[in-house]
This record gives sequence, structure tokens and C-alpha cells, in this order.
Amino acid sequence: MRYVLLLAAAVAAFAQGDEVRKILKDTEDAWNRGDLVTVASFYDDNATFIGRDVTHGGPTEIAARYQRGYPDREHMGTLTFSEIDVKPLGDGYALANGKFSLKRTQAGGGDASGRFTLVLRKTPSGWRIIHDHSS
Amino acid sequence: MRYVLLLAAAVAAFAQGDEVRKILKDTEDAWNRGDLVTVASFYDDNATFIGRDVTHGGPTEIAARYQRGYPDREHMGTLTFSEIDVKPLGDGYALANGKFSLKRTQAGGGDASGRFTLVLRKTPSGWRIIHDHSS
Repeated sequence: MRYVLLLAAAVAAFAQGDEVRKILKDTEDAWNRGDLVTVASFYDDNATFIGRDVTHGGPTEIAARYQRGYPDREHMGTLTFSEIDVKPLGDGYALANGKFSLKRTQAGGGDASGRFTLVLRKTPSGWRIIHDHSS
Repeated sequence: MRYVLLLAAAVAAFAQGDEVRKILKDTEDAWNRGDLVTVASFYDDNATFIGRDVTHGGPTEIAARYQRGYPDREHMGTLTFSEIDVKPLGDGYALANGKFSLKRTQAGGGDASGRFTLVLRKTPSGWRIIHDHSS
């Protein structure tokens, strides 16, 4: 019985990981078609974003933040996530981290890369980012 | 009954927050007496630390990382945490973030500050940091 429960927990953790990885893939795709509104839609209503400054809020505030930093397609460039690691935090939360790389023209600010840490919460509408620390 | 459960959950979350804040206070105190081994002891055996580089490991690896970056008391300076926010993530996990400030001599590298995000896990020995992103 104990092994069945452990197996069930492992399968659930695996499924959680897949769902969170899909959000990262959907974020990449949305970014690369210039759709910041969809990128911001994966944030919770009361999220915290720590980058160069700190932003609190939901998709509207997060979209505004991205729009200030990435005012046009040239500044957005092409986003790739790599070295992605996802860990379940109990049933309803998950931790994801990895590397982001932006391929950009000189006019767009040149290539850039860094690391992100995301904490996500499972909501009735799916996984939502409650905390983003990117540097 | 529902209100009693909500109240019990709120009290538990409050207690969790207090326990996590105590770890931050103990970290500050240990840092300010030059005790990096105690600072590193609050990390889990399989933690990830994202700073300028990425370190994986337990207290031994984390202490070594701190010792590389802060080789003496002058480089450690005086640490103060502020703007601390702690959120429970279900029963056994917590998210903490805030600002760190180092007051240092010019020879020690000068004053420095930034933001930290910690994810902690409740273990039989107390709360342990499983993920640290500082920038």
C-alpha cells in the first residue's frame, strides 16, 4: 500500500511538472509572437515580480511592467528558456527555475540572459505564477 | 465549523511566518558575528542557490560558496534584512522575500544591497531553505 501511495504521489508530481513546463513553453511562444498580454496572463492576481524593481499586482500590472521594459518586438527579441527544473511544493504549489536567453539586434539592446525563479499556485483556472524573481 | 477551520488555518499560517522570520533573524545575527557555518546550516541538504552563479548542495557547499564571496569579516560587513514578506505555501512550505543590505568599508567592497527570494520546507529539524535567489 505504501508503495502504491508513493507511486501515486510520484505520478501526480510528474503531471504537475508537465503542466508547469507547458506554461513555460506557452510563455516562450507568446513572447516570440509579441503577445505580452498572454505572457502576463499566467501571473496570479496578487503576484510579486522582482527584477530590477519590484512590481506587485495581477496580469494588468505585470503586462504594463513588461511593456515598459520591452516596448517593441526588437526589444523583446527571441526568448528561449533552458536548464528548466520544476519541483512540486506539496499539492497545490510548484517551484520552477531555469535560464532565460534573449536573442536581440543591437538596436533592440543586444543579447541578454539570466536566471528566473518562479513559484506557482494551482488555481481552478490552472497554474498561476505568484512570485517571479529574475536576474 | 468552517470559520473555526479558517481561524485555525490563519493561526497556523501566522505561526509558520513567525518561525520563518526567526530563521531570517538568526541568519542576520550569525552573519554579523562572522559565523557562516550557522548561516549555511539553515539550507536544506539539496538546496539551490542562484546568485551570480548557481550552487547546488547542502550546508557544506553553501558555506563554501559564501566563504568564496565573503572571505573575511570586512567583506561580510553588517547585514540587515528589511521589507520582509512571508507567505505560507500549503502546510509544509513557505515563500519569503525581502531586501538585504550590507554595510561595508571601502576595503570590504563598499555598501551593497539587493533582493532575496527564499523557498523553505518544514523538516523534522525545523524550516530549511531549499531555494535561494538573490540579486
